[in-house]
Amino acid sequence: MRNNKKTGSRPTVVIIGGGFAGLKTAKVLGHSKSVDVVLIDRQNHHLFQPLLYQVAMAGLSPAEIARPIRSLLSRYPRVRVLRGDVTGVDTDAKTVVGGFGAVSYDYLLVATGVRTSYFGNDDWEKHAPGLKSLADATEIRRQVLLAFERAEAFDDPVIRKANLTFVIVGGGPTGVELAGAIGEMTRFCLSRDFRAIDPKLTRIILIEAGSRILKMFDPALSARATRDLESLGVQVWTDSRVSAVDEHGVNVGEERIETQTVLWSAGVRASPLAEALCVPLDRMGRVIVEPDLSIPGHPEVFVAGDLAHLHTPEGPLPGIAPVAVQQGTYVAQKILESIKGRSTPPFVYRDKGQMATIGRSRAVVESGRMRLSGFIAWCAWLFIHIYYLSGFKNRIFVLLQWTWSYVTFGRGARLIVDHNEDDA
Amino acid sequence: MRNNKKTGSRPTVVIIGGGFAGLKTAKVLGHSKSVDVVLIDRQNHHLFQPLLYQVAMAGLSPAEIARPIRSLLSRYPRVRVLRGDVTGVDTDAKTVVGGFGAVSYDYLLVATGVRTSYFGNDDWEKHAPGLKSLADATEIRRQVLLAFERAEAFDDPVIRKANLTFVIVGGGPTGVELAGAIGEMTRFCLSRDFRAIDPKLTRIILIEAGSRILKMFDPALSARATRDLESLGVQVWTDSRVSAVDEHGVNVGEERIETQTVLWSAGVRASPLAEALCVPLDRMGRVIVEPDLSIPGHPEVFVAGDLAHLHTPEGPLPGIAPVAVQQGTYVAQKILESIKGRSTPPFVYRDKGQMATIGRSRAVVESGRMRLSGFIAWCAWLFIHIYYLSGFKNRIFVLLQWTWSYVTFGRGARLIVDHNEDDA
Repeated sequence: MRNNKKTGSRPTVVIIGGGFAGLKTAKVLGHSKSVDVVLIDRQNHHLFQPLLYQVAMAGLSPAEIARPIRSLLSRYPRVRVLRGDVTGVDTDAKTVVGGFGAVSYDYLLVATGVRTSYFGNDDWEKHAPGLKSLADATEIRRQVLLAFERAEAFDDPVIRKANLTFVIVGGGPTGVELAGAIGEMTRFCLSRDFRAIDPKLTRIILIEAGSRILKMFDPALSARATRDLESLGVQVWTDSRVSAVDEHGVNVGEERIETQTVLWSAGVRASPLAEALCVPLDRMGRVIVEPDLSIPGHPEVFVAGDLAHLHTPEGPLPGIAPVAVQQGTYVAQKILESIKGRSTPPFVYRDKGQMATIGRSRAVVESGRMRLSGFIAWCAWLFIHIYYLSGFKNRIFVLLQWTWSYVTFGRGARLIVDHNEDDA
Repeated sequence: MRNNKKTGSRPTVVIIGGGFAGLKTAKVLGHSKSVDVVLIDRQNHHLFQPLLYQVAMAGLSPAEIARPIRSLLSRYPRVRVLRGDVTGVDTDAKTVVGGFGAVSYDYLLVATGVRTSYFGNDDWEKHAPGLKSLADATEIRRQVLLAFERAEAFDDPVIRKANLTFVIVGGGPTGVELAGAIGEMTRFCLSRDFRAIDPKLTRIILIEAGSRILKMFDPALSARATRDLESLGVQVWTDSRVSAVDEHGVNVGEERIETQTVLWSAGVRASPLAEALCVPLDRMGRVIVEPDLSIPGHPEVFVAGDLAHLHTPEGPLPGIAPVAVQQGTYVAQKILESIKGRSTPPFVYRDKGQMATIGRSRAVVESGRMRLSGFIAWCAWLFIHIYYLSGFKNRIFVLLQWTWSYVTFGRGARLIVDHNEDDA
């Protein structure tokens, strides 16, 4: 197995997962001459997840927010990239096993993130897709666009109403972004393309179990976001809990909503690889890590990003990109210091704030005591997302795409691609 | 059924197929105030098929060569677009039936094109995808990129060799374009991204049953294209016929080639809708049309584009975009004249020439007595394809994408997107 081949006596760091945490660790270690790195991911691309909803809403193409991990790491000769599924981790034998064979490590970082959770109702998944991968996003795009096509083709008012009703479950940032984008799409982009239907008749319902949306933000910003959504035609239902999802609609408490499109952003649970580490997990299946992000009993094994549950006085850290990036940097530095026999202070998260966007020109931003909303917040959101988008070329293209969309109210990537279908 | 609703006394023209022919007819009729138009397609997008191989080879994103048919026709208020499968045509009742219901017509254009043909060996399809739709292109992209990933992950020289061997069957323009693009991709783009393999060891074999590739071109241009392909590392096997395709490779006469990637561009057959018209078909299943592109006995039913077989002294017209566009224009004018009670001269194809590209800076072009090859031909190819690409915005983006690829030797859209997979 070539993957075990050691070059000289440098320690080998294996990274599982090429998201924000794993990629950052690989890049920092790639600059060092003292380690070999193997990064393993089941996808060949790193995904800029904060913009994934834009792909689902036909605003951007998949290639604009995803780049091959190999390309992102091609300048680091001591970093190897393997594509494949990891099926097991043996922390005693220090080995990772998967479709690619077995790889030995001296240090291990597990950063495989989270997936959509249906709270035990896994049969809801086929009627209510979540938004975690490019395949999810193109599937959501297909469903939303198909609903409009059906509304155009069928005259029956019941069919038409069900196809023009969109339900988004979960009032966190992703749910708010999806609801805002559908509102905007129906009001501005689709109205000129259809003859038989008026896309303005669309019903968009955002369902949140808690008492307000964006509950991690200041209440004033939640209220503002609710008003902004309502101005885009979105109904915000708080204190509402979904009790059933089927192919024709959802039940919310006593109420029945007939709809062809339910999008799920209500919860996440940890990647199942967490269980392979044989250490305590939290209720969501995330690994409860030590203050230095290692796991109990194994100072050479780290967990970072969404998969890690790090106790802080304010509760566990949120599953957002800045946490993952800072943890990725920390783990790399920790490993380099450890090789030199030095100790490192515990990980500390530097909170730069949080943001969510609502449609094409509004957002809410919270950073320390600063709170922004409306267009100025949207500008801040735009600037930060373009700035952090991996890869120079993607940045230019996304900026051009957005400028174009902004000026023309168009949606560039409105493609319905059917797979495994006869092309009659 | 709303689709039957007549607005005033204008005749209704139904167009089946939103390719080059159908879209052109819809646009020309859209300018007229004397007809209602219904365009039906099973896809929601018009595809710029001449650049489809670029999507398969990760040079362009799907959205750069495809646009929603609705958007392309949104400025014409009397043109309606329906997405759906047509299951039947009744030329006596003048009705088209499909998933959307029944639509009555006064004039009908059938322009549903052709699909890949395996000459009766339909079981080869799952091992040797053809290139006709966006789904085909992203599947080919996935297969080619996965072959490189496997070659990187496995040390076994037999597995590696099979994964680095690419077989393209059919030496027409699509086969030549695919082979050239793989040659270029391996030599320039992938070599810097892999550690364990040398992508330059790739074997690319183009198999042609006839005595030369690009047989519709002048023999001197065929010879030049062969030399250009060889300089990119492509082996051109002429007078070779594939006798078997299975999951581990292909048999070519007595020879066996072990490979994980076989791409098929050896033949086409007509869309099965042709049979619904109950008129004589040619050997490939295409409709043998009258000189005015109507079908025998039904002057109100037309067939255009790849699906039409029009006799000319030089044999049937080739299945290329310029023929489809000219026929689309002709059918629209023919219908408008017919409404006014006037007759029209037969369709005449104005041959502007033909071209094929080989890699990133070479092509062959033939127009009348003019024959070009090499870089100057490639510039002509580039100019014409950018010029005809539907939609102003796509043109700008493709030009930027290509300029970027040309300068950096990069491949922007190297994404492997798995569908229906658990995202562990």
